[in-house]
Amino acid sequence: MVNVDLQAVLEQIADEVGALPGRGHSADYIPALAGVDPHRFGMAFADLDGRVHGVGEWQVPFSAQSITKVFTLALVLAKDGTGLWESVGREPSGNPFNSLVQLEYENGIPRNPFINAGALVVTDRLQSLTGDAGEDLLDFLRAESGNPDLGFDLEVAASETAHGDRNAALAHFMASYGNIRQPVPTLLAHYFRQCSIEMSCADLALAAGFLARHGLRADGSRLLTRSEAKQINAVMMTCGTYDAAGEFAYRVGLPGKSGVGGGIVAVVPGRGTLCVWSPGLDERGNSVAGVAALDRFTTLTGLSVF
Amino acid sequence: MVNVDLQAVLEQIADEVGALPGRGHSADYIPALAGVDPHRFGMAFADLDGRVHGVGEWQVPFSAQSITKVFTLALVLAKDGTGLWESVGREPSGNPFNSLVQLEYENGIPRNPFINAGALVVTDRLQSLTGDAGEDLLDFLRAESGNPDLGFDLEVAASETAHGDRNAALAHFMASYGNIRQPVPTLLAHYFRQCSIEMSCADLALAAGFLARHGLRADGSRLLTRSEAKQINAVMMTCGTYDAAGEFAYRVGLPGKSGVGGGIVAVVPGRGTLCVWSPGLDERGNSVAGVAALDRFTTLTGLSVF
Amino acid sequence: MVNVDLQAVLEQIADEVGALPGRGHSADYIPALAGVDPHRFGMAFADLDGRVHGVGEWQVPFSAQSITKVFTLALVLAKDGTGLWESVGREPSGNPFNSLVQLEYENGIPRNPFINAGALVVTDRLQSLTGDAGEDLLDFLRAESGNPDLGFDLEVAASETAHGDRNAALAHFMASYGNIRQPVPTLLAHYFRQCSIEMSCADLALAAGFLARHGLRADGSRLLTRSEAKQINAVMMTCGTYDAAGEFAYRVGLPGKSGVGGGIVAVVPGRGTLCVWSPGLDERGNSVAGVAALDRFTTLTGLSVF
Amino acid sequence: MVNVDLQAVLEQIADEVGALPGRGHSADYIPALAGVDPHRFGMAFADLDGRVHGVGEWQVPFSAQSITKVFTLALVLAKDGTGLWESVGREPSGNPFNSLVQLEYENGIPRNPFINAGALVVTDRLQSLTGDAGEDLLDFLRAESGNPDLGFDLEVAASETAHGDRNAALAHFMASYGNIRQPVPTLLAHYFRQCSIEMSCADLALAAGFLARHGLRADGSRLLTRSEAKQINAVMMTCGTYDAAGEFAYRVGLPGKSGVGGGIVAVVPGRGTLCVWSPGLDERGNSVAGVAALDRFTTLTGLSVF
Repeated sequence: MVNVDLQAVLEQIADEVGALPGRGHSADYIPALAGVDPHRFGMAFADLDGRVHGVGEWQVPFSAQSITKVFTLALVLAKDGTGLWESVGREPSGNPFNSLVQLEYENGIPRNPFINAGALVVTDRLQSLTGDAGEDLLDFLRAESGNPDLGFDLEVAASETAHGDRNAALAHFMASYGNIRQPVPTLLAHYFRQCSIEMSCADLALAAGFLARHGLRADGSRLLTRSEAKQINAVMMTCGTYDAAGEFAYRVGLPGKSGVGGGIVAVVPGRGTLCVWSPGLDERGNSVAGVAALDRFTTLTGLSVF
Repeated sequence: MVNVDLQAVLEQIADEVGALPGRGHSADYIPALAGVDPHRFGMAFADLDGRVHGVGEWQVPFSAQSITKVFTLALVLAKDGTGLWESVGREPSGNPFNSLVQLEYENGIPRNPFINAGALVVTDRLQSLTGDAGEDLLDFLRAESGNPDLGFDLEVAASETAHGDRNAALAHFMASYGNIRQPVPTLLAHYFRQCSIEMSCADLALAAGFLARHGLRADGSRLLTRSEAKQINAVMMTCGTYDAAGEFAYRVGLPGKSGVGGGIVAVVPGRGTLCVWSPGLDERGNSVAGVAALDRFTTLTGLSVF
Repeated sequence: MVNVDLQAVLEQIADEVGALPGRGHSADYIPALAGVDPHRFGMAFADLDGRVHGVGEWQVPFSAQSITKVFTLALVLAKDGTGLWESVGREPSGNPFNSLVQLEYENGIPRNPFINAGALVVTDRLQSLTGDAGEDLLDFLRAESGNPDLGFDLEVAASETAHGDRNAALAHFMASYGNIRQPVPTLLAHYFRQCSIEMSCADLALAAGFLARHGLRADGSRLLTRSEAKQINAVMMTCGTYDAAGEFAYRVGLPGKSGVGGGIVAVVPGRGTLCVWSPGLDERGNSVAGVAALDRFTTLTGLSVF
Repeated sequence: MVNVDLQAVLEQIADEVGALPGRGHSADYIPALAGVDPHRFGMAFADLDGRVHGVGEWQVPFSAQSITKVFTLALVLAKDGTGLWESVGREPSGNPFNSLVQLEYENGIPRNPFINAGALVVTDRLQSLTGDAGEDLLDFLRAESGNPDLGFDLEVAASETAHGDRNAALAHFMASYGNIRQPVPTLLAHYFRQCSIEMSCADLALAAGFLARHGLRADGSRLLTRSEAKQINAVMMTCGTYDAAGEFAYRVGLPGKSGVGGGIVAVVPGRGTLCVWSPGLDERGNSVAGVAALDRFTTLTGLSVF
């Protein structure tokens, strides 16, 4: 690590990824995202002290979407401890991120906090704990990234609400098992608002720094115990990239969490955090160029956990 | 790591685990294994140079069972490269280890090489490549462990064959999709023989050393590329403990592979390998005391990959 | 048939059923129904000319619940022809009546019009065709039964709405596939109102008479073609009693439709219609005494279609 | 019925079916059947007294395949009563005929005796009861059809055995649950031999006559009680045409059983039996022209049970 010129590595990756033939398609089920050029690309690495290296559009905000699920999970664990795990599992689902099948076989307990059903439960609990899940999350992200301008994109949130029947189905379904505490429309409003937050690669890499620092926030205060930070990294490794978690672990070998906005955050425990953004998605909802870039990163630097 | 007294850690773990109230039950579907006392316990750590620390019954041979799947996978990748991945996936299954459901939805391609269906495909390929999968595996294990006395337990193999209808169903089912090359009875004979190998914690920790040495064998020769070794570790992390891989990653945070004989092998990349044995299993087929011991090991030493 | 004394048969059945040891439990997920005594019993037979034989509480109104699905299906087919079958299948589901699993594998097209998902689609279409599905249904039932006092039980409807998360999930889920035309809350209001209609055995047997008369209404006018009437009977035979349709056909051998209020309507094509009511349900949601009574009826009279 | 000129009806049907545009494809997974011209066609009606009307190739033998499952079921019920139903269900499967999924969820108890898994259990029991399931079946079919020349087509049986991995998987899978009594290879040999029997439309219509005669054999002796005959008809109605039973009931409205040789037997209780043959199959394994011919038959004659 001492000998790695990270800026040079990032620039080499940007060059290589620029030559990738297929780049996938932008998420088409959220109209406000569908128009984004799938060839855009940015990548940033933040070290433990908050120094950031970047390449491409690493300072351009994009829709964080499911990446925010890492932060709501951390906030619920920080505020309420491990009781959450009675309502959400920690196993990979082996199924698409919005599947209802497994939920039915398992009586309304979602497999893990990163599939949509699980994230709905986490947001439901954060809302119960804070009274305003969205604001609480925003405060945290602004503090960690040092960017006071972070905010919701209400157009994206409205767009998702209008096309949100699948998530409404998931929420009502879990409510039928008693696993949702807020009224479903309230929960959905908070959930879609949370997903709509706009952040850059730099913002996200910095905000996730507590996972590389074994639980310590940017200001040195403790958010999570060392053990809790390890646990979130483990859940990201086994469940962070929808039903492609095995493939991501195989190629990249780092805990990671993707979003349909095209972003992926990855953690090198004890070293730093990465965020890559490119809006073209593969059929499982992960950024094509993003996974390729992280694959190259661990190969070039040897910074895989394996 | 420099400051860790591994022998002291292992002894502390043995003490703590000795006080565990519930210990699970020995595998009851293999009559030859059903009689083993679930309270037996051994644990060993092998460093990169082959030095072994041990505690309890760390030198007592037990039935390796599914742990052997790590080695057959490595041998097929070493001999034949990544073509294997066209016939076997790399995703966690989210289902019990001997489920046929997913296999049907996915047209006879098993989810990963560590569920029974996937391991049958790997053994099938090893048999095609070597003409005698069992002997080839045995040669490798003897060389890496330095123990020339390793052998099959034919009584256990016969016992599994007599109760092997589920595996016969899996093999015929995949054959109906064209994903098995050997005659099914031949394949099953090799598969059950392979699973019956008897090894001690010390033997297994040493034999798995190539995964901690990024692909190098005990004699310094290269079995796998650094990238291939990383990949096997990644598959162990996401798929190595049946449908409890998420839980294992969450608690232990190391790549691991369990067997119904009660053994678990775990890898600390760049540091060494662990093997723990205790025959009492939880309802998912993993050693109760084994998982607890590895959990304590990573907590006490900080040697998790996260 | 000429020689059958139907009144005597019904009385014999009432005696025998009265001696049944287990009678099941009233539906407990609808609080307004949970308090009904499972031992209540009534049964009626209406011939083609509208003459009714009855025994027990055959004139006491009860909550028709899913039996109403037969009538909404007939009304949609009468008004709109077979286009409905592009949005709803005609196959038994092999799964519980409120399952989401199959719906997901089959892209939001419910298996048949008698599982909840299918009935929601039928009510959605009736609402689109008439502007007021509930009133249209009520008009039809009043005319056929000759009972102008039929009405909704708004307490039951409110009770179901309050516990209606599962049906809300089904409706949103199908809406996500574009298979629902009304706003989901509007649809659910009509659906629960429809299910809450209170009718006696006599009312229901008379109202279903068009199915025994090959499509002719009580006043001799044609509601359905002979072929359409045959088709509804066929769907009742294969799908009318949730995931126990095979068992019902095996024991009773008549087209039938049950409801969780404890009622069952059955059709003897060309002869007449039966309705039996007893609130105690088996684990699949069918009236225990109701199925037993119909089983005895076909055995005593030979009036099975087989 | 009195007024129906059955010969004229059959000839009209043959004309109409001859003009059908698409005719499907012959079964391609059994090489010995794949070569048969999908446009061949024959149809026969046998009345209760054994008089046969026929059209087209109604006297040409073809491979009876799954139609034989009706007869083995009747023989087991005749010899052993209803104990069979503890090992086989009576519900439609809602899944393809050779699915393993449901079998796993339901612990090795097949849904009904007409899917492959269920038929394997029935043949297993017949073999246990008689010592030679195939010969026993052949004796029965020869007696009922009056055709002493009926026999196995050993080429077809060998062809199925060579491609029988899916059925071997089903049998081993059920054996793993203890639901198979014969050694699996023995069972498979009998099963494939049974399916290979060659019969004409006339033979099959006559052989099924006991189902129209409420349990009486051709010679007037009783094979089954009236209730048992009703029950087999009911199972044919709800489960006789793979996962298209609802569609078949909807279009035809008679109990029926199809085979991948292109034959379908249908029962008009109290009137007679039909058999139609045309080798072109739809995607669910039922004869395209066969279903169309039966659909026309019930429409032209009104002889549906509904």
